[in-house]
Amino acid sequence: MTAAYYAAVDWGTTSFRLWIIAEDGTVLAERRSGEGMTTAAKTGFPAVLEAHLAAVAAPAHLPVIICGMAGAKQGWVEAGYLDTPAALSTIAAGAVAVPDVDRDIRILPGLAQRDLQHPDVMRGEETQLLGAAGNLGDGRHLVCMPGTHSKWVRLEGGKVTGFSTFMTGELFDVISKHSILSHSVADAQVFSGEHPAFLAAVAAACANPALATNLMFGVRAGQLLHGATATDAKATLSGTLIGLEIAGALAAAGAVDSVCLVASGSLGALYRAALASLDLSPRIVDADEAVRAGLSTAAQAIWPL
Amino acid sequence: MTAAYYAAVDWGTTSFRLWIIAEDGTVLAERRSGEGMTTAAKTGFPAVLEAHLAAVAAPAHLPVIICGMAGAKQGWVEAGYLDTPAALSTIAAGAVAVPDVDRDIRILPGLAQRDLQHPDVMRGEETQLLGAAGNLGDGRHLVCMPGTHSKWVRLEGGKVTGFSTFMTGELFDVISKHSILSHSVADAQVFSGEHPAFLAAVAAACANPALATNLMFGVRAGQLLHGATATDAKATLSGTLIGLEIAGALAAAGAVDSVCLVASGSLGALYRAALASLDLSPRIVDADEAVRAGLSTAAQAIWPL
Repeated sequence: MTAAYYAAVDWGTTSFRLWIIAEDGTVLAERRSGEGMTTAAKTGFPAVLEAHLAAVAAPAHLPVIICGMAGAKQGWVEAGYLDTPAALSTIAAGAVAVPDVDRDIRILPGLAQRDLQHPDVMRGEETQLLGAAGNLGDGRHLVCMPGTHSKWVRLEGGKVTGFSTFMTGELFDVISKHSILSHSVADAQVFSGEHPAFLAAVAAACANPALATNLMFGVRAGQLLHGATATDAKATLSGTLIGLEIAGALAAAGAVDSVCLVASGSLGALYRAALASLDLSPRIVDADEAVRAGLSTAAQAIWPL
Repeated sequence: MTAAYYAAVDWGTTSFRLWIIAEDGTVLAERRSGEGMTTAAKTGFPAVLEAHLAAVAAPAHLPVIICGMAGAKQGWVEAGYLDTPAALSTIAAGAVAVPDVDRDIRILPGLAQRDLQHPDVMRGEETQLLGAAGNLGDGRHLVCMPGTHSKWVRLEGGKVTGFSTFMTGELFDVISKHSILSHSVADAQVFSGEHPAFLAAVAAACANPALATNLMFGVRAGQLLHGATATDAKATLSGTLIGLEIAGALAAAGAVDSVCLVASGSLGALYRAALASLDLSPRIVDADEAVRAGLSTAAQAIWPL
């Protein structure tokens, strides 16, 4: 068995993931939990981390590389932001060492776009990007990282030239739970990216983004007048928000050589279907693999073998 | 003192308003309360109505004309919909009589647009429209009625040819309360339609509607990076949603001869400022007067003197 080299942690707002990585890159152990920043800010970041390290019997002095919200102002230790344009190769050098602990623990910085008209920030996605960029080569790439706050990044020659965040996932959640549409989607079943109502909504919102909130109300009216199902309603709401996002992201990006989708699971499948329906054929990179690859790239730069 | 002719009631989801109207059109008494459909569905519609009539000592057999959600499926007596294209002059004839009561009580129908691509409904606004239309004359008019669910109506020769609902007010509310932006807007003060952040957001969203949810995230990023105030944040969120709505409404309407704004109070002032900033000079009709005028027009058709 190869020796443990470092622990890699993706510490989000509501999720914690840890991998023990060997010198040859093998994943020796993995932990996942809901102890994200929100929980850890109460129970203590060191306690959460050490409990997971102990659970996989990690060596006492194994170094730890962390990305994500643990580096936010309200996180463990603030890791600041690199300003765009930012070369991905400079992320590792921007890592902040956690003081007063018995291990070497580093938290990676986020990215900030300080443009007065288009201020934007990311934290965690820069590490996914660092991992995904290895597959992309030269040229102008547009990288989509869907989620609560979807990020669309313009990447050119290993440098982030700009990015745009869309509140798609969060809006889907709050509209589904707290608006009049909560009644419409309450009994919805799981739907796929091939669902006709989803694809119709993607097309409608992308063609007429200004009608986005009108298309949403149409979900309710469609149920009253035409007896549309709850699953149709949910698929339409999802497709409307994703179509709106794609229209905006493409408009903001201008000409690109390729589109890359960094995503996992059912959300990745929805975006893949939406992009395909618009005649975009993105390269697909698994989001879990991307964040691990990004953490590994940074760890190797900080602690070279 | 002139004799009472009828009582007019605007019964919304969360509000109840009643006026006692004399034969010469004078308002003899007025009542306002929060006993909208949601409350009355629990306490009983007849009890709420009779209590308000008793409070103003209305005659025992005074007839009552009602518009709004009291006619919804989940209201008092379902009053159905008139289908578009619908002549406003036919609204009174579509009124439904409330059975098993000691007065003549009629509830006006809503309007439905049964278009499969753009299904839409309204209930209550058709009566405002009936009242406002008296001022508009011939030609193609676009009538904006802002609110929780803003309605934009295409009116041509006294006939509603189509309409579009935008979820602007409700989205502003749920995003302000339940999304990450709740932190950004929590300490905001009241702002006017002349607030620079409001007008900048109207312009940005109207010019680039596809970027709407990106502009919203910029509210949060602007606070993190540039120290924008909570009032700036709230004004930006409001301007983004209103700018998006106006862009969509204008796109959906095509060429029109005039734009008319039927609104009251601070919301009316915001829309007036937003429309003026886009070089639109709407005719202004007070929403309270419009609904009373519409109820009066219907009452006179049903119970001619």
